Amino acid sequence: MKFLALAGGVGGAKLALGLSRILPQSDLTIVVNTGDDEEFHGLHVSPDVDTVMYTLAGLSNPETGWGITGETFAALERLNAYGADTWFNLGDKDLATHIRRTDLLRQGKTLSEVTDSLRTALGVKHPIVPMSNDPVRTMLTTDLGELPMQTWFVRHRCEPAVSRIRFVGAEVSQPAPKFTRALQDSDVLVFCPSNPFVSVAPILAIPGVRDAIENFGGTRIAVSPIVGGQAIKGPAAKMMDELDIETSCVGVASQYKNLCDIFVLDDVDADRAGDIEALGMRAAVTNTMMFTDDNKVRLAKYICGLAA
Amino acid sequence: MKFLALAGGVGGAKLALGLSRILPQSDLTIVVNTGDDEEFHGLHVSPDVDTVMYTLAGLSNPETGWGITGETFAALERLNAYGADTWFNLGDKDLATHIRRTDLLRQGKTLSEVTDSLRTALGVKHPIVPMSNDPVRTMLTTDLGELPMQTWFVRHRCEPAVSRIRFVGAEVSQPAPKFTRALQDSDVLVFCPSNPFVSVAPILAIPGVRDAIENFGGTRIAVSPIVGGQAIKGPAAKMMDELDIETSCVGVASQYKNLCDIFVLDDVDADRAGDIEALGMRAAVTNTMMFTDDNKVRLAKYICGLAA
Repeated sequence: MKFLALAGGVGGAKLALGLSRILPQSDLTIVVNTGDDEEFHGLHVSPDVDTVMYTLAGLSNPETGWGITGETFAALERLNAYGADTWFNLGDKDLATHIRRTDLLRQGKTLSEVTDSLRTALGVKHPIVPMSNDPVRTMLTTDLGELPMQTWFVRHRCEPAVSRIRFVGAEVSQPAPKFTRALQDSDVLVFCPSNPFVSVAPILAIPGVRDAIENFGGTRIAVSPIVGGQAIKGPAAKMMDELDIETSCVGVASQYKNLCDIFVLDDVDADRAGDIEALGMRAAVTNTMMFTDDNKVRLAKYICGLAA
Repeated sequence: MKFLALAGGVGGAKLALGLSRILPQSDLTIVVNTGDDEEFHGLHVSPDVDTVMYTLAGLSNPETGWGITGETFAALERLNAYGADTWFNLGDKDLATHIRRTDLLRQGKTLSEVTDSLRTALGVKHPIVPMSNDPVRTMLTTDLGELPMQTWFVRHRCEPAVSRIRFVGAEVSQPAPKFTRALQDSDVLVFCPSNPFVSVAPILAIPGVRDAIENFGGTRIAVSPIVGGQAIKGPAAKMMDELDIETSCVGVASQYKNLCDIFVLDDVDADRAGDIEALGMRAAVTNTMMFTDDNKVRLAKYICGLAA
């Protein structure tokens, strides 16, 4: 069975790692949100792509949730001394990724080609595909005005209340060719436990993607990033509250109506299974925590079991 | 008295430091060769400008002659893993300079403006002026074909024999405005002990510069980078040999005919003073070695004495 996993940041990367441990590289395509790509110091940074890539390469820093473990920050300190805005943490090793990416993009390669080149060099065997080779930018309308995703997320620590989210450029973007192929060829589509509004929604905003998923030929499985009314990591719960969506796995599931056959919720939310099923999807209850690599593999196996 | 110093790499930087220690910032303009500027990984590197800037900032690595003392190379190692050509050593702190420079250039600032911003941030009070805001590229015809300066110098360790040197773009370049002003306003012009062929010649190749120096109103003083038939640092002697120019202070002086009033040669070359004077310039003999900062200040004071 061929799997297509849609992923955003840390939660998505964790399940992608689990899936990559049990599926051969030919049977798993990981498509990653690029809505929060941003240029820092003239360098193209793809935060979600890098989180997935570093996680699969065994490089990611589990303590911070971003960047590479054992990083140094010599260049950033110096950039700060030069008067550059350095609120976005870029380690020295991480900078090499952005320098190389930017250089290859300027040479005319697509973001997909660049990502292939980078992940291969890091020893990652499974394809990691940016959702689009075209620029799509997630913009949040907040009480501080409209902010790009990373400005809101990192610079303002998710503090400004969010009232609206849009994906600038999405309407004229195309899915990356390998994403289109995976939508056609895959037997199982997995929504990783990523933020539905800023990790998954940008992917769905690419013309044709929502339709393709609504008409997907195989099994569509979503995993809730909200457990017991809390986001495992990140601002999903706060955002749902501000957007007036129930802060629960049911609120998440409501975002995947018509897009999902099986919705995976955590044991602690077992009592909400009926509400999930009322949305027209099957509820599957399990332990969704992914603290350790074993946890990740266990959840990945559970999902494979559901698909079979 | 106002001084204009023309400098290239390490030797130029040493004398520039000496001059900066005894002259107020209003009385010294240091104009630096940019003929060996190069793009690495999509970043604009200005090796000579940075050598002068780091030297005046007290950051330069005296052991290597390039880069910043106490550097780390985390990003470069990673760039190498990504398959980039990493024969040009770029430390993490140094990379910040090139990232910031490239970013500011892409924002539309001139190389002069960028250099001002960088050196000010590093606490360097004396103006460091790139010879031109326009691209000029020093190209060496060698037995391996035509090579850009840094490719020949670093990648091929100066090994290929040089038969010809040209400065691509020089014919349509203009001197940086502050260089033009210094040529008009200065009382003393100093050719620092830099390579005449690849550090000083690119500066002279900018239209109008040679004329302005030939007609300079004040005193023009050159310091020989060749002592006892050897280059203090770098490939000047080897290059002179290959270009069929006498490998001596006299060979250097011959390059400054009509451009120089006083030629400073080292004590060990005292017996060549007559040959220098035969070229139509006064010979001044002193200890030109600049191992320590005291040495640099002593030579700078000696030059000021000659000018007075």
